[in-house]
Formats: sequence, structure tokens, C-alpha cells
Amino acid sequence: MESAARRIPVMELFGPTVQGEGMVIGRKTMFVRTAGCDYSCAWCDSAFTWDGTGKEEIRLMTARDIYAELRAIGGDTFDHVTVSGGNPALLPQLAELVDLLRGQGVTIALETQGSRWQDWFWQIDELTLSPKPPSSRMSTDWVILDSIVGNLLERKRRFSLKIVIFDDADLLYAAEVHERYPDVPFYVQSGNDRLRETDPGRLLPYLLDRYRWLVECVIAHERLKRAHVLPQLHTWLWGNKKGV
Amino acid sequence: MESAARRIPVMELFGPTVQGEGMVIGRKTMFVRTAGCDYSCAWCDSAFTWDGTGKEEIRLMTARDIYAELRAIGGDTFDHVTVSGGNPALLPQLAELVDLLRGQGVTIALETQGSRWQDWFWQIDELTLSPKPPSSRMSTDWVILDSIVGNLLERKRRFSLKIVIFDDADLLYAAEVHERYPDVPFYVQSGNDRLRETDPGRLLPYLLDRYRWLVECVIAHERLKRAHVLPQLHTWLWGNKKGV
Repeated sequence: MESAARRIPVMELFGPTVQGEGMVIGRKTMFVRTAGCDYSCAWCDSAFTWDGTGKEEIRLMTARDIYAELRAIGGDTFDHVTVSGGNPALLPQLAELVDLLRGQGVTIALETQGSRWQDWFWQIDELTLSPKPPSSRMSTDWVILDSIVGNLLERKRRFSLKIVIFDDADLLYAAEVHERYPDVPFYVQSGNDRLRETDPGRLLPYLLDRYRWLVECVIAHERLKRAHVLPQLHTWLWGNKKGV
Repeated sequence: MESAARRIPVMELFGPTVQGEGMVIGRKTMFVRTAGCDYSCAWCDSAFTWDGTGKEEIRLMTARDIYAELRAIGGDTFDHVTVSGGNPALLPQLAELVDLLRGQGVTIALETQGSRWQDWFWQIDELTLSPKPPSSRMSTDWVILDSIVGNLLERKRRFSLKIVIFDDADLLYAAEVHERYPDVPFYVQSGNDRLRETDPGRLLPYLLDRYRWLVECVIAHERLKRAHVLPQLHTWLWGNKKGV
């Protein structure tokens, strides 16, 4: 008898689409969104993964189930998968999906806040650590984050730091993170606090203003030299719609 | 007597701003735009660098002049410079600017169509080769492009290919380039053919539609698997304004 495959709590599978943010912005990819988070950020854009509102949609799937469904919906159009959450770093059993995807020649990106380590981080091609600034009302465990960044730097993995910014206190936090880890590619992203706006045409000018504000802040900032400043392209294209 | 420093024809110096496109999209940077081009693309967004309309603005500057002016306008807010044109690869004397910037700890990005080789390409941190698709009415010299790509791959430089796309014939050209150089990070960018639109508010919905069209094309395309699909963020923010 085969050993039982461990199941992964999956909230959404979709694509192909393009990655809307961060270090691989624009990359054609499929998305796997896992359920469950150790954080509860004030402005989380995927709160349905952890606040109970999405619990009916969670499916417990094996790595094989997930890969089969990605091929069923994406056909032969993709060679890249992005894993997001929730916090996928809560799930040791993701190792099985990571192994399976790599065996199929698929490149893997993953996003997590940097509150937990998993050994399968070594196998992620493009890892984004996104510690949360004060506006989230979460607090950063610097000891853990230091150790995760240290592990990744030591093995020369391709990874980045990304901070979502809403206000001046967040900018200050971003500058601290940037100076604490000066050798890590660094991204700031304008936040979206109009998560209930259902009209993309009304959302866009607001998001554009928020991005312009952040660009102007970073341009003038002597402590944010090596920064990349990016929006969330998917919200510009599709508003707050899920599954794109 | 010092040997005479060779002069570089400079069209624009500006910044700090953020890079609006390609492999280092979002990166805080200063811009140096050189004058002169061996191409005359039908839709060039910087035709003033080669069509005579900007000739009064061209300044012949030494590398030291350029660096001094970058510091005068950017102060201590930057550590990255982007060189664009025109085609900066026409200028062997750019070697002096590249050496000077590297000596100051400044990271350098450069964009060229891939029609000429310069030995100083080895010193560019982020080189974008942007061969031009059929809509440009230019034709690609594949022998030269093969040799440039080969040189860069051999020394494992960080570089990318970027194709600006206006129509289906351009998409086909992009797929050919992607398959010819499968190991090179690959970007497609939606083109802007409304270069005379002076109202950013009228330009934006058009650019968004063109980007959405390109995203949808690439999503469905089996030959464009590893692509990144990006807009020109600066045109979304500032329209067709120069110097940002």
C-alpha cells in the first residue's frame, strides 16, 4: 500500500493569468491559494482564507489532485505556478506539491509573511517574504525573520522582500526592513483599502493616486535607494474580482 | 596633459523616478537618454532623439559632466542609473560613463535594440535587448542578435529580451524570439500608439485596454509560456509627458 498522501487545504485554483505584483510582476502563471493564516491583517485582501467566510469553499487536496486540476484548467499554456494564501508556510505538506511541480519542469513562486520557516523554501524559485507594516496591526517577529532571511542568503536563493504601504508609519517600517537586509531585492507596493468597491472604473483612479503617492514618497526618500515601487496590476485590470 | 575625455551626446537627464517598464520595472532610478539611433521605428516614443526635432537640446557631455549633473538633480536619493536612447549602443565612449558609475557604486541598466555590440555591455547590470517587431517597419539582423545573446549568455550576464507588441504579427514575432532564445528572461510590453494624446485621463483607458488585450493573448498562447507581460507604468501615471 502506498503511504497516504497528505492533504493540502486549497481555497482557490485559477489561471492562467499574470502575476500582478512583486518580484515576478507580469509573469504568466497559475495560482494556488491555500487556506489558513497565522495573521489577520487589518486590510487583508484575501481574508476569506482565514476569517471563516470562505470555509465552504476549502477543499482538502493531494498534490496530485492539485496538479491534475491545474492542467485541466490551464492545459499546456503554462510552466509557472504561484502559491499564495493565507500563509502557505503553515503547511509542511506543501513539500509534496513543490516536489511534484519541480519534477514536471514547472517554476514555482511563493508568497509568505516570513513568520514560519519550512525546509521546502529551498526549492522555491521565487520566494517573496512580505512582513507586515504597522497599518496591518500585526507585529513582526524579527528573530524569526532574521533567521529566514539568513537561511535564504546562505544558500543564495532567489528571493525578495515586499512591504505593502498605506501610510507614513508603513514607509518608516519599510525603510527599517530595507536597512536591516540591504542585500535583499526590495519592493514596496501601494495598498488597496477599498476592498468593497465593486466598480473597477471607480477603483482605478483611486489606486492610481495611491501608487503615485508612493512613487513620490520613495523618489524623495534617501533611505529607500534600492527600492522597486509597484502597484497591483491585477486590481488595475480587474478591480477586486477574485480568481484572476 | 590629460587625454581628452570623449563626449557623449545627451538628449535628456532626469530623475529620480521609477523605471516604468521591463525587467527592472518599478526600480528607483535616474535616466540618461542619449541622442542618435540606427533605427527609425514607426511608433518610436522618443523620436526626438533621432528625427531632428530635438537637435537643439543635444548636449555633448563628458562622463564626469553627466555624473555631476545626476548628483546635482538627484542628490543622495539614488544608486541606480538607466541609460536609454536613441540607441546608446552606437556610442563606444559610453564605456567611460559606465566605468565612472560603477566606481561610485551605482547600478546600471541599459536598453538597446540589439543591433550593435559594445564591449562595455559586460559591465551593465541589467541589460535589455529590445528587437523590434514588424509594426516598427524595421527588420532584425538575426546574425548580430544571435552573437550578442551568445556573448551575454556565455558570461552569464543578467539580461532580458523585451518585445513591444501592437498586433498579431508582432505577437508571432515575439513567439519566434522567445523560442530562438528560450533561456533568456522574456518580456512583452503593450505598445502606445497614441503618442500625441496630451490628456493622461483620456490616454489611460486606452492603454489599459491595450494591456488587457495583450494579457489575454499571452494567457491563451501555448508558445508564450515563460513570458512576462507588462505595461509602461510611467505612461499610466504621467501620460506622454517627457522627463519623468
